[in-house]
Amino acid sequence: MTYPWPDLGTPINEIVTPMPVIDEDRLAANIARAQAYLDAHGKRFRPHIKTHKSPAVAQQQLDAGAIGINCQKISEAEVFANAGFDDILITYNIVGAAKLARLKALNARVPRLSVVADSATVVEGLAATFTADAPLRVLVECDTGGKRCGVQTPQQAADVAQLISDAPGLAFEGILTYPAPGGAAIVEDFIAQTLALLEARSIPCPVRSNGGSPDLFLAHLVPSATEHRSGTYVYNDRSMVRAGHCTPDDLAMHILATVVSRPTPDRAVLDAGSKTLTSDLLGFSDYGAIDRLDGARIVSLSEEHAVVDLTDCGASRPAVGDVVRIVPNHTCVVTNLFDHMVFHRDGKVTRVEPVSARGTVW
Amino acid sequence: MTYPWPDLGTPINEIVTPMPVIDEDRLAANIARAQAYLDAHGKRFRPHIKTHKSPAVAQQQLDAGAIGINCQKISEAEVFANAGFDDILITYNIVGAAKLARLKALNARVPRLSVVADSATVVEGLAATFTADAPLRVLVECDTGGKRCGVQTPQQAADVAQLISDAPGLAFEGILTYPAPGGAAIVEDFIAQTLALLEARSIPCPVRSNGGSPDLFLAHLVPSATEHRSGTYVYNDRSMVRAGHCTPDDLAMHILATVVSRPTPDRAVLDAGSKTLTSDLLGFSDYGAIDRLDGARIVSLSEEHAVVDLTDCGASRPAVGDVVRIVPNHTCVVTNLFDHMVFHRDGKVTRVEPVSARGTVW
Repeated sequence: MTYPWPDLGTPINEIVTPMPVIDEDRLAANIARAQAYLDAHGKRFRPHIKTHKSPAVAQQQLDAGAIGINCQKISEAEVFANAGFDDILITYNIVGAAKLARLKALNARVPRLSVVADSATVVEGLAATFTADAPLRVLVECDTGGKRCGVQTPQQAADVAQLISDAPGLAFEGILTYPAPGGAAIVEDFIAQTLALLEARSIPCPVRSNGGSPDLFLAHLVPSATEHRSGTYVYNDRSMVRAGHCTPDDLAMHILATVVSRPTPDRAVLDAGSKTLTSDLLGFSDYGAIDRLDGARIVSLSEEHAVVDLTDCGASRPAVGDVVRIVPNHTCVVTNLFDHMVFHRDGKVTRVEPVSARGTVW
Repeated sequence: MTYPWPDLGTPINEIVTPMPVIDEDRLAANIARAQAYLDAHGKRFRPHIKTHKSPAVAQQQLDAGAIGINCQKISEAEVFANAGFDDILITYNIVGAAKLARLKALNARVPRLSVVADSATVVEGLAATFTADAPLRVLVECDTGGKRCGVQTPQQAADVAQLISDAPGLAFEGILTYPAPGGAAIVEDFIAQTLALLEARSIPCPVRSNGGSPDLFLAHLVPSATEHRSGTYVYNDRSMVRAGHCTPDDLAMHILATVVSRPTPDRAVLDAGSKTLTSDLLGFSDYGAIDRLDGARIVSLSEEHAVVDLTDCGASRPAVGDVVRIVPNHTCVVTNLFDHMVFHRDGKVTRVEPVSARGTVW
């Protein structure tokens, strides 16, 4: 659907709500700060596109010095390949004949495509699909405390690496992890043990990829890692501020919402519900923070409404028609709900970007 | 993005995952049962499109006897107007010059469009926009315990109705509520009191619209209501089963997901995360029920992964590549994440429908 998007320069408090808005200067500063830190510590940077799903923003990250991008789905990678990105890592076990065929087609046109595997079953599917004339790069995913996917021990990592290394159509590229926050020492130990096992088998392991925005500025605590992957850092959110990973001045995303009802003195209702903010709490007891409205709490969401409890607010309370600014608990899931997002500098619209990789299935 | 959608007749366990699939027979049965019940009790039925966002499914509801549809946004109503729907109620306070202008354009082309208002401020915006040559129908939204939008008392309802009635460009259509579940007696009392006040002012109130899937089959307990609005009933979900509003045999939506990792004997990881299921808990302690896998619990979601605890499962545990069927906690928010959904009969694909009204902003 095409909307009457705001002209460049329009004040953002005049645009349609609910709408996420991205502060250009904070975005640029977040990109620059992360890149400078990783450059200073000799780590390559591979941002995860999950947070913005936008080739334009990913290009800003590459322009600042990132070596490539990280996607989570084949179809996301296709969007970025179509936009000319040539170094793409898909951090996902690709399973099933249909997806493997699609992955093969993608590998034929992306100069540097890689995926992960964490079991013999996943490697077997890849090995049966790819051939030596156009091999696929594969990393072994390691569970270092995140308790999601990944081999459980360095021995298992070496065994899966061996399977990859032995497959004619696959090229063993390295190992990868997404640690539990604060797990630097565990990651370093896991990598070091795995490297020793691989060395004993004469299997080179050029890439050791560590990840996460919570651990971004702790990447130097994992000396064996060669690259770092982060998504959330680019916009940041309320959970990142709470954890001390950024300051409120680093929040590049806000959601603008309009007060549509004031049914009682202590209740306001906004036009931003779970279909805007999602119901991600991430440990908070409310669904986002309202900027410059001390004491207000978003106590419940229905699909298109947020109910705000104003009990602890002072006398200055918002009226129907007022626009408020919400700091989302979790930025990535908000992006995923919108087909477009509005960017601004100093509150004036600079561009409207499509969220091009949203809604992909494969 | 265009995908290689499955041919008609394809077994659904062969389609790409994660994907919501809709059982045609259960869908048809849910539509028929609700319509038959409301017909038997002399209530008009106005289904809410939030659950499917699909003109094709809404047409099935009209074909069964619904009088029109209920949307939550102007831009959703535009999608349905473009598809030929001629009786649309937008249950939202429309606020701000841009949205009011867009609403006026919509009213000029929809034979029977109506909105709600719950305050003098909202009525003033509408009254300043519409003129007597093309008046807009307006209902007063009443808070009967849902604690969201709505006037708080019958007296306030009558006062807002008077403002609407007095505006040359507005036509007072009636009153509307979305009650707290089980609030039939409160709704009946609120309507009866409001009708008495309106009668004393000689203001006709032809429509008394009650709502909610939880109270759908209790609609006969509100004799003063003339119509009922429901969304979720069309697909149903885990929360509806738990509350006793439907049985497991009435679940028309499942989400198909593939096991992509089995890192430990007690852990499986699925390719359906919060960007598929959402993090809506609705009082559950886990993120959806896995059909035919007793004891399995979806204990955590990341954006593209679900972690399943198999500790309480028997010896028969899923392997990498197996497809499982998830009953979502909340169906409406799942629909909102997908651009298309697959329909099937007896497990064979019947159609792929676009979720046409997803991603609308205005």
